[in-house]
Amino acid sequence: MKRFIELFILALLCFASLPASAENGYDLWLRYRPVEKKSLRNHYASRFSKVYVQDDLGATGDAIKDELDRALYSMIGKHPEYVAEKKDAKLIISSGDSGEGFSIKSKPGTQVTEIIGEGPVGALYATYALLHEMQMGKLLDNLDIERRPEISRRVLNHWDNLNGTIERGYAGYSLWNWERLPHDIDPRLIDYARANASIGINGAVVNNVNASARSLDRDWLVRLKGLADAWRPYGIKVYLTAKFSAPIEIGGLATADPKDPAVAEWWKKKADEIYTLIPDFGGFLVKANSEGQPGPQDYGRTHAEGANMLAEALEPHGGIVFWRAFVYRNDRNHDRIVSSYEEFHPLDGKFNDNVVLQVKNGPIDFQPREPFHPLFGGMDQTSVGMEFQITQENLGHAGHLVYLGKLFSEVLLSDTDGNGRSVADVLKSGKISAIAGVSNIGSEINWTGHPFGQANWYSFGRLSWNPEESPEDIAEEWIRLTLTDDDQSVKTIKDMMVMSREAVVNYEMPLGLNHIMNYATHNGPEPWHHDPVWSAYDYHKVSCDSIGVDRTLRGTRATAQYKQPICDKFDDLSLCPDEYLLWFHRLPWDYKMRSGRTLWHELVYKYNEGVNQVESMISDWDKVSAHIDKDRHKRVAALLRLQLEEAKWWRDGCLLFFDSYARKGIPTDYPQPQHSLDYYKSIPFPYDWDGYYK
Amino acid sequence: MKRFIELFILALLCFASLPASAENGYDLWLRYRPVEKKSLRNHYASRFSKVYVQDDLGATGDAIKDELDRALYSMIGKHPEYVAEKKDAKLIISSGDSGEGFSIKSKPGTQVTEIIGEGPVGALYATYALLHEMQMGKLLDNLDIERRPEISRRVLNHWDNLNGTIERGYAGYSLWNWERLPHDIDPRLIDYARANASIGINGAVVNNVNASARSLDRDWLVRLKGLADAWRPYGIKVYLTAKFSAPIEIGGLATADPKDPAVAEWWKKKADEIYTLIPDFGGFLVKANSEGQPGPQDYGRTHAEGANMLAEALEPHGGIVFWRAFVYRNDRNHDRIVSSYEEFHPLDGKFNDNVVLQVKNGPIDFQPREPFHPLFGGMDQTSVGMEFQITQENLGHAGHLVYLGKLFSEVLLSDTDGNGRSVADVLKSGKISAIAGVSNIGSEINWTGHPFGQANWYSFGRLSWNPEESPEDIAEEWIRLTLTDDDQSVKTIKDMMVMSREAVVNYEMPLGLNHIMNYATHNGPEPWHHDPVWSAYDYHKVSCDSIGVDRTLRGTRATAQYKQPICDKFDDLSLCPDEYLLWFHRLPWDYKMRSGRTLWHELVYKYNEGVNQVESMISDWDKVSAHIDKDRHKRVAALLRLQLEEAKWWRDGCLLFFDSYARKGIPTDYPQPQHSLDYYKSIPFPYDWDGYYK
Repeated sequence: MKRFIELFILALLCFASLPASAENGYDLWLRYRPVEKKSLRNHYASRFSKVYVQDDLGATGDAIKDELDRALYSMIGKHPEYVAEKKDAKLIISSGDSGEGFSIKSKPGTQVTEIIGEGPVGALYATYALLHEMQMGKLLDNLDIERRPEISRRVLNHWDNLNGTIERGYAGYSLWNWERLPHDIDPRLIDYARANASIGINGAVVNNVNASARSLDRDWLVRLKGLADAWRPYGIKVYLTAKFSAPIEIGGLATADPKDPAVAEWWKKKADEIYTLIPDFGGFLVKANSEGQPGPQDYGRTHAEGANMLAEALEPHGGIVFWRAFVYRNDRNHDRIVSSYEEFHPLDGKFNDNVVLQVKNGPIDFQPREPFHPLFGGMDQTSVGMEFQITQENLGHAGHLVYLGKLFSEVLLSDTDGNGRSVADVLKSGKISAIAGVSNIGSEINWTGHPFGQANWYSFGRLSWNPEESPEDIAEEWIRLTLTDDDQSVKTIKDMMVMSREAVVNYEMPLGLNHIMNYATHNGPEPWHHDPVWSAYDYHKVSCDSIGVDRTLRGTRATAQYKQPICDKFDDLSLCPDEYLLWFHRLPWDYKMRSGRTLWHELVYKYNEGVNQVESMISDWDKVSAHIDKDRHKRVAALLRLQLEEAKWWRDGCLLFFDSYARKGIPTDYPQPQHSLDYYKSIPFPYDWDGYYK
Repeated sequence: MKRFIELFILALLCFASLPASAENGYDLWLRYRPVEKKSLRNHYASRFSKVYVQDDLGATGDAIKDELDRALYSMIGKHPEYVAEKKDAKLIISSGDSGEGFSIKSKPGTQVTEIIGEGPVGALYATYALLHEMQMGKLLDNLDIERRPEISRRVLNHWDNLNGTIERGYAGYSLWNWERLPHDIDPRLIDYARANASIGINGAVVNNVNASARSLDRDWLVRLKGLADAWRPYGIKVYLTAKFSAPIEIGGLATADPKDPAVAEWWKKKADEIYTLIPDFGGFLVKANSEGQPGPQDYGRTHAEGANMLAEALEPHGGIVFWRAFVYRNDRNHDRIVSSYEEFHPLDGKFNDNVVLQVKNGPIDFQPREPFHPLFGGMDQTSVGMEFQITQENLGHAGHLVYLGKLFSEVLLSDTDGNGRSVADVLKSGKISAIAGVSNIGSEINWTGHPFGQANWYSFGRLSWNPEESPEDIAEEWIRLTLTDDDQSVKTIKDMMVMSREAVVNYEMPLGLNHIMNYATHNGPEPWHHDPVWSAYDYHKVSCDSIGVDRTLRGTRATAQYKQPICDKFDDLSLCPDEYLLWFHRLPWDYKMRSGRTLWHELVYKYNEGVNQVESMISDWDKVSAHIDKDRHKRVAALLRLQLEEAKWWRDGCLLFFDSYARKGIPTDYPQPQHSLDYYKSIPFPYDWDGYYK
């Protein structure tokens, strides 16, 4: 056996430079591939020969050791030896009482590396950071790393229904095995926690914002405790979406009026019950008076009054409320884009200290590109938190390669006031700083369906920790950890990823055209959708003369919600960037663009640019085939073909539709649609997350 | 020398870590663990040094090579070398045109092994059989294996809804990623096919028997083609459940009357459409006039008339119909147990040749133990197929360790006529021989939730291939492949598994008491359930004097549906085995049992025996901890504690309930219930596969 193991490991190391024949993606960016270079292997082996982990790190200390064991065995074929005395150790891991920051330092003149966490979870984060250096092939000499998260609540929002379906989820179904919880902890729940901890995510709202009140029933809370206990060592707190009408639905009260003392009392008791089971429960997320959900306005109360009642129930236990700002009137004559600001701006200063107003990145609803939401910078006395969507509801679901790091970063770095106060600065300035991402993960073996969806989870975590990080650098790291270490391939893939976000913007919403996707699935074009409740016409307002919505000071005044000079930048046609042109302005088809093309021609150009970009992704991906395992390479190649098909569906469907008004024709030097408009209108949208087809 | 020592230490660490390393169960029984013994490793290496795979095996040939690559690399660290000429090969793989049988022979006087498949899939099955020998540590000399399946259709039935939930599924959600099919083949879909092929399963009905007609829509059929294409190399055909009312629901017809020519024509066209996409489509499964599903009786037609219409549509393409016999009247005054035979026995000889009547193993509904269904042996001119349930709907869901190989085998070997014509013989005698298992797999990382659920999938496949195989032997092989090769541990675990089926019978349905589980979830006791539609009282008929249902010739005459002498065996109290006592007989509480105990005392004894058996499983599992990886060991241990809790819930809830009639008291030498009957009645049943809690 021994001799065989030698040979086996030698063989493994020899093969390390070649892509494995099959990888199903389950290991994410924590693949811990065998280290090829012998000198580096020896270096790591010597630095991990003796490890000291401070005794009192508890379950987090066990998680640290577990991760070191996995990683070292996989990378260099050795388990670390744990020693009882600091003085005997080459790697020293210790921490203070609490806090997520950490340092990793090489002790001068020795071969000793010292990790100090502010708290045990800081030490865990440091361990992942050290392993990250190794995965990137770095030497462990002269380490001098100090890190602390810029934002304190870095949370995944799971829109998981209690029956396991996931609203707007495209990568399988819920990972929470409610029936066997809290007894049975599926090992995948631990791998979920590991993946999150490795990128600094420290919270999870486990149920849908369109919530069932039953998730607050004791039957479910005892199950939730199973998740909380499993994730605690990894620094992940559980949160629940609280349905505002729960006091009626499961509490037997006649009202959910936040000013009714019995209602407030019910929530207090519910909070007490939760904290008895889960002492570090994070708090509640609430979608209230939004898309049919109940809320305080049902009783003539404000959002602040509703939020504060819940906040008071949680406050004694240290819990917080994420109150969503995603509201709009069901009124086609009112521009939806201005609703949220109109509703919440007057409430600035009225929220309790433990309330975070959770605001979507843009003022519509997770489109491929939106200007930042004007509530960022518009609520100076309120903790404003970010809600990104990682799941690609409007970006091709899990079928399209779209790297969202670019989208996240663009929003986070947006200047809110002309003085360089970025959205990220706004987030950081809150009493509670917070960032949430609507998860793209589910039960598929690779977690995200599209193999590149993993990069969106990864970049969300990294940017939550440090919003100023370069999304290009993050992409490169993700590629090296996840796909290949071949420099030329890394460059090619990084360029693809960086371009991918512009591609989806081009083929889905050129020049700021928005919300013209299929009504039910939000995938594929449906600018022709028109019914009394939900009409794409309200968003593009196409006519024979013009297209776009006038949201300037002469129109719906959406621009007025931004501080100067941002207001001017969007309002003034001569200043407004092309990418937001039809978002804020209504313009004639012959309007002359900066490019020299007419507006119509520019639309044709942009739609085609999107398709061309997907085509170039296909040929780029082809070039890297020698350096990617064949299963994942084949899979991404197939998905890119699907993406190309759908990009053309968007382009041709939209152009034919708009041209049925504009009557300009598609210039002959562009590809002509293969089918009639009626054909594109007839393409079915068979996918349905809501169980309509059950 | 230094290098040698380094490698030596490396190997030592590696060896030491082997039993402790974590396994999440994804690899099932195809783990291909490194071979420890050097001599054996060299033996395998030499036998696989040169492999010839016949050119024209097509995609199945690629699957064979892929499996050899995976297995050999994992077991001995080497990839086989494929050679172009038979004469250069140590392993020769070839096949005829079609057929599933195969031979594996050592060529005398050489080191050459020759595999000959009747068809390519036979060669694939042979490859798995050869790798099985290696996984069991066997030498490859003197091989002389010839195998051919005893039953031709060996099919998993997936009760998967189109929205991804699984009716009566307890291991996550559907594995079919409909939205991205047919473009995107999740690697898990291939692993699914590999697992099935390795145990001889050759078909999959991919949608719920409670079907949506939409699964027959072209939108879904083009997606189904993706599954068919992915699985074809592995010999797996796809089947669909066909909703009888589809011509109305998706066809726009006014009727689904099988005698209406337009209806028959619609089905013919639908079959043509399917076969254009999927030339080897297996056929339809139908649940008709059963539990609210539409069917031919809605139009005054018989089951045979309905089945034959579909059979005629499929016949030109070689497709078949599985017509389910699971029907009962919604009439509390009619003993449900006799319905199916009453309905179908008169139709014997009336079904077309390409119809299989798919009959559940017993006459009620997948209880932990049922006598065989009297339609086995009662339909001599009809192909009768078996429907087993692998998912543990009534056997503790995925929370209880229950080895179903024992259940399957008990039914298959049941004597139907006193002359030793077994149920298996009945299956084999059909024009089409068929066996179906309602799948227990889903999207959880280990496929089945409970790690031992894998053994039920495995044993179903093995017994479908050869119904006479010993379930004990199958259990032993599964343990060695999946858990451990330590002889003492194998023995301990095998004994646990063999006992586990008796345990669940004892704590859920001692002496043949049946169908007293919770109404909605079918987990946990609810003998007190009583409403006009569904009453547990109809099944136990408890009174102050007696318990059980008189189904003898003096009662509902269920016994009359069996051939002699089986009828007598069940009908005659002196002959009826204890395990079916209350299934067929109504008896007073003081009835004297063969054991000498009264009936009441025997019930108490049996319920307690079930609990004791779970306790002994807990202590047995504890004994094998050194030989099982710690993650799976810990998980099974936690699940056994859950099982013990629920076994006590069954025991105490049922005994208190029955004693509220019998008024005998639980003898003082047995454990007394910890709680009142009202407490047991109040335990919630929060799990719900149907999305009630969404």
